Amino acid sequence: MSAQKIPYKIYLDEKELPTAWYNLRADMKSKPAPLLNPATHAPMSAEELAPVFCEELIRQELDDTTPYFEIPEEIRSFYKMYRPSPLVRAYCLEEKLGTPAEIYYKFEGNNTSGSHKLNSAIAQAYYAKKQGLTGVTTETGAGQWGTALSMACSYFGLDCKVFMVKCSYEQKPFRREVMRTYGASVTPSPSTETEVGKKILAEHPGTSGSLGCAISEAVEKAVTNPGYRYVLGSVLNQVLLHQSVIGLETKAALDKYGVKADLIIGCAGGGSNLGGLISPFMGEKLRGEADYRFIAVEPASCPSFTRGVYAYDYCDTGMVCPLAKMYTLGSDFIPSANHAGGLRYHGMSSTLSKLYDDGLMEAVSVRQTEVFEAAEYFARVEGILPAPESAHAIRVAIDEALRCKETGEKKTIVFGLTGTGYFDMVAYEKFHNGEMSDYIPTDEELAHYAARLPKID
Amino acid sequence: MSAQKIPYKIYLDEKELPTAWYNLRADMKSKPAPLLNPATHAPMSAEELAPVFCEELIRQELDDTTPYFEIPEEIRSFYKMYRPSPLVRAYCLEEKLGTPAEIYYKFEGNNTSGSHKLNSAIAQAYYAKKQGLTGVTTETGAGQWGTALSMACSYFGLDCKVFMVKCSYEQKPFRREVMRTYGASVTPSPSTETEVGKKILAEHPGTSGSLGCAISEAVEKAVTNPGYRYVLGSVLNQVLLHQSVIGLETKAALDKYGVKADLIIGCAGGGSNLGGLISPFMGEKLRGEADYRFIAVEPASCPSFTRGVYAYDYCDTGMVCPLAKMYTLGSDFIPSANHAGGLRYHGMSSTLSKLYDDGLMEAVSVRQTEVFEAAEYFARVEGILPAPESAHAIRVAIDEALRCKETGEKKTIVFGLTGTGYFDMVAYEKFHNGEMSDYIPTDEELAHYAARLPKID
Repeated sequence: MSAQKIPYKIYLDEKELPTAWYNLRADMKSKPAPLLNPATHAPMSAEELAPVFCEELIRQELDDTTPYFEIPEEIRSFYKMYRPSPLVRAYCLEEKLGTPAEIYYKFEGNNTSGSHKLNSAIAQAYYAKKQGLTGVTTETGAGQWGTALSMACSYFGLDCKVFMVKCSYEQKPFRREVMRTYGASVTPSPSTETEVGKKILAEHPGTSGSLGCAISEAVEKAVTNPGYRYVLGSVLNQVLLHQSVIGLETKAALDKYGVKADLIIGCAGGGSNLGGLISPFMGEKLRGEADYRFIAVEPASCPSFTRGVYAYDYCDTGMVCPLAKMYTLGSDFIPSANHAGGLRYHGMSSTLSKLYDDGLMEAVSVRQTEVFEAAEYFARVEGILPAPESAHAIRVAIDEALRCKETGEKKTIVFGLTGTGYFDMVAYEKFHNGEMSDYIPTDEELAHYAARLPKID
Repeated sequence: MSAQKIPYKIYLDEKELPTAWYNLRADMKSKPAPLLNPATHAPMSAEELAPVFCEELIRQELDDTTPYFEIPEEIRSFYKMYRPSPLVRAYCLEEKLGTPAEIYYKFEGNNTSGSHKLNSAIAQAYYAKKQGLTGVTTETGAGQWGTALSMACSYFGLDCKVFMVKCSYEQKPFRREVMRTYGASVTPSPSTETEVGKKILAEHPGTSGSLGCAISEAVEKAVTNPGYRYVLGSVLNQVLLHQSVIGLETKAALDKYGVKADLIIGCAGGGSNLGGLISPFMGEKLRGEADYRFIAVEPASCPSFTRGVYAYDYCDTGMVCPLAKMYTLGSDFIPSANHAGGLRYHGMSSTLSKLYDDGLMEAVSVRQTEVFEAAEYFARVEGILPAPESAHAIRVAIDEALRCKETGEKKTIVFGLTGTGYFDMVAYEKFHNGEMSDYIPTDEELAHYAARLPKID
């Protein structure tokens, strides 16, 4: 197959699309640590999680042995509206960089939510509907997850309440309007609609909010409203499971043309995109069938992997959620106002944290202005205006391709282009005007928050 | 082939993509009227057009006999970055409407310009570069054309000066920032940068601008700056030629699955999308090989086809451009502040005008709020947030599908979904808040402007 010219964009046929999600944990000999009850420090049972999460999603969350979960027909039908997403061969970028590397990106931005988030949103809405619920609550940072969930809820006729991190709400007024188009209600967080919101506002007046804080509010709203459950767009195992569709399609497209990736790169906030993208490749690595390098890219302003601690921590600021073992900066860490709203979470997927701790993947952090330099360069060369989150992966993909140029190595680089930046023009404007901050937390700051982590044996 | 299940989205393979544009005029026995010199009223020669337009584009503009123009390799290479666009079978919409009709839409919004405009922008930038020019000037209404041209100029290293209709500039501040990302300069029109702009501002202080006015400014800027030419994103024959790629792909995709369209619907501002979409189908109709119904959809606030006059008129407010015979409301008609910036032009493609006058196509006008109702309905059902312009076609496609439901007819409806509405959230917000105007010009108003048309024999 290698003689075959690889098209600019590889679209799988409908019959080549994945029919089951892949559960990476099934192939991990050393499993991620379980969620703990914050009061007893014992592993959370399905019964304990039931007031917060949907039943089927709890089953998926706790199952670390079943390798494949069939994708229900209704979800596969919705997927067909916007999937397969293209795997793009970045011919133009390669040529412009003058690199011998071959670069591919899996572009998840060609849907109205503007990102990969829809892959899990539609799954979670489906199971909520199947359980007979009235609606769901959630938080959103950059707004992609909230939009995705609004779309999914609209499709299944569910009510959708979104708590949006206040700084994103203010930076992206039009995101709210998109969610409203899909019938969702959107509240800037912290708000006075919840007890935990009021408490946070009292303690930190004028705070610009955080994902951890918005999670607390959304959870409270779910457990205090009959017929509602809380859903989350990242971090959780179930989300990585749904997002495995990204990696499965990517692998099928590469296999179709006989291409073997060397290096797989993704931005990492809570880990939903990165976890989904690498899943089947990491599975091969865990089973000893193939080797790959994996690189998680995070903002230097919110460096969970590269400067965080691997420990049990609260998933939310209000400490109402279970404890998860993960790379974390501390649940009350609030990053400086960077413009990658999707990468502002204090923690990280416990599955990815375990893999990173076991030395199976790498992580790097990058500064905001160098990310936007890469974003603008990419927009001009490849014709797609990337989301700031996605541009973190672009930055490192370009750096790696330039390294290949120096060494003459013909590596195959695959990265996840998670979304588009149409709602991030305030950030681009700041970049154009030279007003963008590159603030990085000091060691003292990080130590302050690390010292406040819960003490778990 | 008819037994074959038609996929949700038909993507042509690279080898199935068009290699030549189709020039509809070659098959018209009765040709569109020529452009006239505004001073002498004689047909414009290539020499007379040369100070304004690029040479090769003039050749394309004036040639009404050559049926096919090969697409240069450099343009085909750029097309591969975002084409083929999908032809989508609207299974979800059909089901929701309960119609026996089969509905397809050609979705041109999956690129950073957000619309089909990139198809002609890259062609025009290519010919400008080939001619050795420094840069180009243009106008933009909704902003899609300006964005598309910025992208194309960035790709070929050309300078790009955009005059943006003031009301759009104010409604869509982020559009400017996207163009800036691609290195373009953007000026709200009317401006004090040109003599014609100053004159219009003096006569109509506080005007929100119009496409006709922005065209005048862009033309003046081009002819007074050595190394610059003016380019236009609609109306002209050359643009319809480039946009024929939409129709050629649509037809190839339908043919691949043995589907015969009955009814083809497109929104019409200057006619670039509609003309491109219908070209190969209209060609078959003109040659007597097949029959189709074609429907142009325009806003009731700017009804060139349905309430305009078929006459020679100026293409711009400043009357610096050649005269074109077309359906027009008068070159100084300025529509009320509707939210489909791409459909605010006073005139119409002379090719489409001729076809309409010859009874080969139909036209309907629709009110703004019913357009947004259709837009929101479509967004929820098909998962794509449409541009207000595109939603005009959606409105009529839905109406026709509902008519099929009444009659039980199983028609095949194809419409052009020209773009996405991510930069139109101000308009959606007005719609959600019930603040959207449905103003329609009175007969007296239209008669006033019609009386001011130039007198040409």
